Amino acid sequence: MGILVVGTVTLDTVETPSERVEDVLGGSGVYAAVAASFFRRDIQLVGVIGADFPDPYTDFLETQGIDLRGLKRVDNGKSFRWGGRYTQDFNVRDTLFTELNVIEDFQPVLPETYKDTPYLFLANNSPVLQLSIIEQATNPKLIVCDTMDFWINEERAALEALLARVDILVLNDSEALLLTGDSNLMQAAQAILRYGPKRVIIKKGEHGAISVTESSFFTAPAYPLTQVTDPTGAGDSFAGGMMGYLASIGDTSEEAIRSAMVYGAVVASFNIEDFSINRQKDVQFSEISSRYRELQEASHF
Amino acid sequence: MGILVVGTVTLDTVETPSERVEDVLGGSGVYAAVAASFFRRDIQLVGVIGADFPDPYTDFLETQGIDLRGLKRVDNGKSFRWGGRYTQDFNVRDTLFTELNVIEDFQPVLPETYKDTPYLFLANNSPVLQLSIIEQATNPKLIVCDTMDFWINEERAALEALLARVDILVLNDSEALLLTGDSNLMQAAQAILRYGPKRVIIKKGEHGAISVTESSFFTAPAYPLTQVTDPTGAGDSFAGGMMGYLASIGDTSEEAIRSAMVYGAVVASFNIEDFSINRQKDVQFSEISSRYRELQEASHF
Repeated sequence: MGILVVGTVTLDTVETPSERVEDVLGGSGVYAAVAASFFRRDIQLVGVIGADFPDPYTDFLETQGIDLRGLKRVDNGKSFRWGGRYTQDFNVRDTLFTELNVIEDFQPVLPETYKDTPYLFLANNSPVLQLSIIEQATNPKLIVCDTMDFWINEERAALEALLARVDILVLNDSEALLLTGDSNLMQAAQAILRYGPKRVIIKKGEHGAISVTESSFFTAPAYPLTQVTDPTGAGDSFAGGMMGYLASIGDTSEEAIRSAMVYGAVVASFNIEDFSINRQKDVQFSEISSRYRELQEASHF
Repeated sequence: MGILVVGTVTLDTVETPSERVEDVLGGSGVYAAVAASFFRRDIQLVGVIGADFPDPYTDFLETQGIDLRGLKRVDNGKSFRWGGRYTQDFNVRDTLFTELNVIEDFQPVLPETYKDTPYLFLANNSPVLQLSIIEQATNPKLIVCDTMDFWINEERAALEALLARVDILVLNDSEALLLTGDSNLMQAAQAILRYGPKRVIIKKGEHGAISVTESSFFTAPAYPLTQVTDPTGAGDSFAGGMMGYLASIGDTSEEAIRSAMVYGAVVASFNIEDFSINRQKDVQFSEISSRYRELQEASHF
């Protein structure tokens, strides 16, 4: 079953203690769609780019089987650019610049062929825009959204309206605490469920992720890496990999979501091993399966 | 098989955002021995107290089946006192005071009946003192030690000599990074193995713990709590519970250590629910088994 990914498509500049890359392919929509494309070949990407967006980047997305009919190119506009710098331990990221450009006035309109897509991933974005996608969807089977501190602080009412309409909220641990005002993650998870989502998935970076519903708790491990090159997009790769697996088996049960979260963690682990989506370019599905089995073995007792 | 626990026996003052307790029973040796006592009734505790140490505290330890022949009382001395304060999210602890008192000149001599005890847990202490215990042990089957930033910084040579003699080093994530100078936990774990221990177990608080050997990796979940009252002693409860389980089955295989770590996490979760060892006083073994099964269910995929 098809997956609709709505997110940013950007040109990123990333600095780490040892390297710097400029104008590389990035954005929440890209990371999520590429991650999902390991599991399905019917991924639809909704986003916006400017006239300056390099053709090799869109060509690559198409070779991954990602449908770009929903990717709007603004001929007199510039692409969204983001710059960030990581500290030595990769736990702190400073934003160097954010040039919204074509993103600023983007009002996504779903192509007719996207409207009945069953699996929706609404990557971090304005909750107003995220809600407008849900309004246009005619056949949603699973609606998953992400958010971040900016929207929690600036668009609270719209965010609460959004949460009443989604099946799963995926967010970082610090964002879960900010959203609820709690200092305990389990309390925060329970408070988030009261806003409406049936499930909340809290990402904890190198500590894995947890999933909480009214009646279940699951703790997913992260894949242990000895070398981190660039964590940009890890959270979106996690969510995209999760969506890809769920759509590939057409199942949203507790068991399916648990496996999907671990597949998401595996795809995220590859993403972290290089800048942009460079590592994903040559990852074979057998490598994904292999790390999945390693994580099964590593968490068995 | 018996367990020898060498650690501090203290009077603690603890402040949290909502409560304050004074001169309560604490210390690494106490937390570890009480945790181990859920699994075995032959726990030997080596430590030192002053004339001011309340009888009800030692009486309680004896009712837990803990052998106190190795607990030295200095008639003209004062007990070790420690005071600490937690911030709102319990992730930061400020030490308010440390009065070493009788600890300062303590040179533990093992009673004859302790020397051939097979399971040794050397709680956080001077590595010189920890080494002296190993020298006195005649029949060690498993030697586990803990350490902390103070010894890493101040007693580096002795600590390295100790690490060459132990089977398992248990320490916090921040201490693992400090010990090795790494910024990546998996790299730190591998560097620690080169000092000599066959296994390193890294405690990550609410994120659980990991175990690394040359050929294995295991990630143990923490028990999810909605209410934290006092985390003091959680790490020692974890290690003590782990030792207790291992001694109870007389097995130190990979599988046994995995289960032991999860039992340790469960005992630590009870410890956190109240000050001192108050919660442990009325925990039934059936409650420990129940949380163990919950964690099995919560990490299965």
